[in-house]
Amino acid sequence: MAVLVEGRVVQAKAKRSTPVFGGPEAVIDTIMRAVTKLDPDGNAVAIGIGMPGPVMPGTGVLPAAPNLPGWDYDVPVGAILTERLGGRPVVVDNDVNVGTLAEHRLGAGMGVDNLLCVFAGTGIGAGLILDGALRRGPRGLTGEIGHSFVAFRDLKSDGPGCGELEDYAGRRSMEQNARWLAEQGEGTVLFDLAEGGRLKSRIWAEAIDAGDALAARLVDEAASALAAAIASAIVLIDLELVVLGGGMAERLGEPFRKRIENEVMERSFTGSSTPVRAARMGDTGGAVGASLLVEDCG
Amino acid sequence: MAVLVEGRVVQAKAKRSTPVFGGPEAVIDTIMRAVTKLDPDGNAVAIGIGMPGPVMPGTGVLPAAPNLPGWDYDVPVGAILTERLGGRPVVVDNDVNVGTLAEHRLGAGMGVDNLLCVFAGTGIGAGLILDGALRRGPRGLTGEIGHSFVAFRDLKSDGPGCGELEDYAGRRSMEQNARWLAEQGEGTVLFDLAEGGRLKSRIWAEAIDAGDALAARLVDEAASALAAAIASAIVLIDLELVVLGGGMAERLGEPFRKRIENEVMERSFTGSSTPVRAARMGDTGGAVGASLLVEDCG
Repeated sequence: MAVLVEGRVVQAKAKRSTPVFGGPEAVIDTIMRAVTKLDPDGNAVAIGIGMPGPVMPGTGVLPAAPNLPGWDYDVPVGAILTERLGGRPVVVDNDVNVGTLAEHRLGAGMGVDNLLCVFAGTGIGAGLILDGALRRGPRGLTGEIGHSFVAFRDLKSDGPGCGELEDYAGRRSMEQNARWLAEQGEGTVLFDLAEGGRLKSRIWAEAIDAGDALAARLVDEAASALAAAIASAIVLIDLELVVLGGGMAERLGEPFRKRIENEVMERSFTGSSTPVRAARMGDTGGAVGASLLVEDCG
Repeated sequence: MAVLVEGRVVQAKAKRSTPVFGGPEAVIDTIMRAVTKLDPDGNAVAIGIGMPGPVMPGTGVLPAAPNLPGWDYDVPVGAILTERLGGRPVVVDNDVNVGTLAEHRLGAGMGVDNLLCVFAGTGIGAGLILDGALRRGPRGLTGEIGHSFVAFRDLKSDGPGCGELEDYAGRRSMEQNARWLAEQGEGTVLFDLAEGGRLKSRIWAEAIDAGDALAARLVDEAASALAAAIASAIVLIDLELVVLGGGMAERLGEPFRKRIENEVMERSFTGSSTPVRAARMGDTGGAVGASLLVEDCG
């Protein structure tokens, strides 16, 4: 998703799919086409970009990224695009960070200076605002909450993945878990609804609405795992608010949010309430947040 | 523990036990006696104090503290002591925070700007240095890692405690768990070694040395739970170093530290190494750290 922003107002949008083939070059070409579409005459004073990986702070370099096919080496995205855009400033950050900036400045987190934004989709990422500023961390790795451990006893010797939040609450793992349970003979409408495709967020929401017990159980476990990771973050860094977004959270809606909030509050060591609010920026949040990067750079 | 510090060098020490009876008044009297002992002529320019609870940032007020008997209401420790010390400045903070300051400025964390100090004893607390500064958080609650959730499936409806790090790695819970297992008929030398007393850190170390299987299993579980919580903190806030201290960690020594470090590195999503170092400041760390509070206030 790309947006043209003037004075914090979205003037135009352009949606492009991330290319599956062609590696970094194809991705950068796609970004260039979206920029050219929105700004054919090159009037934009600067370009902000959110990328799916830990961008090294201040460098515009995205290292080998597991979420992007063929992105097997460090790519200086900022420098390449600056050159292709005639020297105009290009600021690059992690996509979850820019989504968090958008929620903090313009969305559900406005006016709150210590907050965690959790985005639950295929995987699970988070952004962190501490004392009013986005925390990136020395290696740009802040917010990888999907890899936090919520079930240390589930860890097995055959892989590092078991026991992590994403294993229970990431859509990719939830689909694997559902498939495994179905193969064990448990009934579910999930795969019928998906008609051979992936179990997208919409499918999970439909299965829940249809009273599917297996879907309900896995979503319940996802909510519990999310609540545990969120409650842990609250007691570790003293947060005033949690914002919950991402495809799964949006589709599962208010019952899912409320379920998580209740469990976070019940478990909160502090007894005090740290609310869990729904994200407000929707599917342009990341792109709008990227425009705020440019604002920050003057 | 109280220390008299001049130019960051400890000139004298005085050890006092926290009184079990008498509530806040008795605790404050004990502090006063230690201060008078170390500084009979009132030459100290300022006094720094670490208290076992979430001191409200900038106020010197310690709210109702579960770790201090009879401390059932908010007590303005800083203001009371300032008055009793003839108006000299008194700075109050959480005991884990001052221990963390000491490790960061003078101990195992020197020169590292993003670090977590975990203190494992009766309970488990942590302090956090982010970008070179101690994080307190809006409510002074930062670092309550003992209440983070490492086993979300262990949560039961009958209490909020199950599934928290302290349930597996806090000495209080480990003693309860050992007692429960012994009552189920499992053999152990722990209670013989303790001769009817508490299972202090020394007892656990002796039981391990004696080849006690139950003690080894519970210490192993404690190490795994600590590693999970530490690895989660690393991926959430991007830390360069973890410092491990506290009575249990000191007594269990190098094998315990190494076991935790190995597991943290194995599980680290980043693949990069975040070392776990042993704390260096020992039993005066907290008091020396409290003196650094004064330094910070000019």
